[in-house]
Amino acid sequence: MAEDDGLYAVTPRTKVKRSAARGKYDKETVHAILDEAFLCHVAYVNDGQPIIIPTAYCRIGEKVYLHGHISNRLLKSVQSGAPICMTVTLMDGLVLARSTFHHSMNYRSCVILGTGEAVTDLEEKRAVLEGIVEHIVPGRNAEARNPTEAELKATSVVALELSEVSAKVRTGPAIDDKPDMDSPIWAGVLPFDQVKGVGEPQPDPQLIAGVEVPQYVSKYCRPSSKEVF
Amino acid sequence: MAEDDGLYAVTPRTKVKRSAARGKYDKETVHAILDEAFLCHVAYVNDGQPIIIPTAYCRIGEKVYLHGHISNRLLKSVQSGAPICMTVTLMDGLVLARSTFHHSMNYRSCVILGTGEAVTDLEEKRAVLEGIVEHIVPGRNAEARNPTEAELKATSVVALELSEVSAKVRTGPAIDDKPDMDSPIWAGVLPFDQVKGVGEPQPDPQLIAGVEVPQYVSKYCRPSSKEVF
Repeated sequence: MAEDDGLYAVTPRTKVKRSAARGKYDKETVHAILDEAFLCHVAYVNDGQPIIIPTAYCRIGEKVYLHGHISNRLLKSVQSGAPICMTVTLMDGLVLARSTFHHSMNYRSCVILGTGEAVTDLEEKRAVLEGIVEHIVPGRNAEARNPTEAELKATSVVALELSEVSAKVRTGPAIDDKPDMDSPIWAGVLPFDQVKGVGEPQPDPQLIAGVEVPQYVSKYCRPSSKEVF
Repeated sequence: MAEDDGLYAVTPRTKVKRSAARGKYDKETVHAILDEAFLCHVAYVNDGQPIIIPTAYCRIGEKVYLHGHISNRLLKSVQSGAPICMTVTLMDGLVLARSTFHHSMNYRSCVILGTGEAVTDLEEKRAVLEGIVEHIVPGRNAEARNPTEAELKATSVVALELSEVSAKVRTGPAIDDKPDMDSPIWAGVLPFDQVKGVGEPQPDPQLIAGVEVPQYVSKYCRPSSKEVF
């Protein structure tokens, strides 16, 4: 067995082509993304039609685990050994360039290809379900009423090995064209975080003097976010 | 042509099976989800393997639009007329039940099936790209340097009609089993919002008196969220 170099083998299917420098194949980056997020999108193919479903997950070692009710179509498909894709995305910020063309986002994403494997042993199921709760709300298992055998049997658990995996990461300020650099247009990053929400705007390091943060950035909101809580 | 009843036709492929009561097929719900989020996940099938890529989008009327560099593999696939799926998910809150089995999330998601169509007319492209910027950062188009013809030509724009569409929405408190209802276990919802981040915990309306919000809820964080900004 080859020594673990901390990297996932790059395959033609996982090699990042666009902005190849943003492609990451090291376990540290992949694990950090998987451990920070808790919602993933999983796709399976039904009669040629891809279907993407959002769901919770956790990582334990070199596997990620999905769960759901035994009647869940996604899990049935995943357990059948059909090829699936699981993508995890963390949106870290809106990148406002001087030109609309160079607007971008800072993000960390991870794409996992493979086939699922049903976890049927009740004690292994129990460990995975604890893992999912602990991943999403650390500390919760110790307090909540733990699953009964009937509940374990009513739950499907599926494992997906971290083998064909790639991450893609964009960080940093906008990359504008030279002729735009001395325009009096505000440029910078508006950071996002799952827990903290939108943060303080980060002006571009090369922003020309005297350009104020526009209100549509400093008071950023979405249609309903004013009313949520 | 049939009168518009504000509903998308339910097809065997879009009918929500699990928790069917959470399935929504009305334009108002679908549009609200699409207008609140700005990041979607799009899947295409390559040689039997589904691939999910996160990307930005906007809705204009009964179409959603994707864009990217002309060399972008996802867009090439979408333009080829192959079946694709676009899913938009808003995670609105963690639902902590008294039993781990009934833990859940509040969310609003929307699944769109169909085939893409390339937008090639430069003025239509310009309108869509403005639409995407305006959707994500309202007010930005008026200030940033708008696309040149060369930039428009370097950008692929693809439309996807809102025709085979379903939404799924979960709201409200945890649904625990009767025997668990008088346990002295904190239950409630920890709300999430893209802009505001994590909000104040909302105790379950039937929580028994004297149960304090646990620290793992009131001080909720993710591994790196302390260091983001």
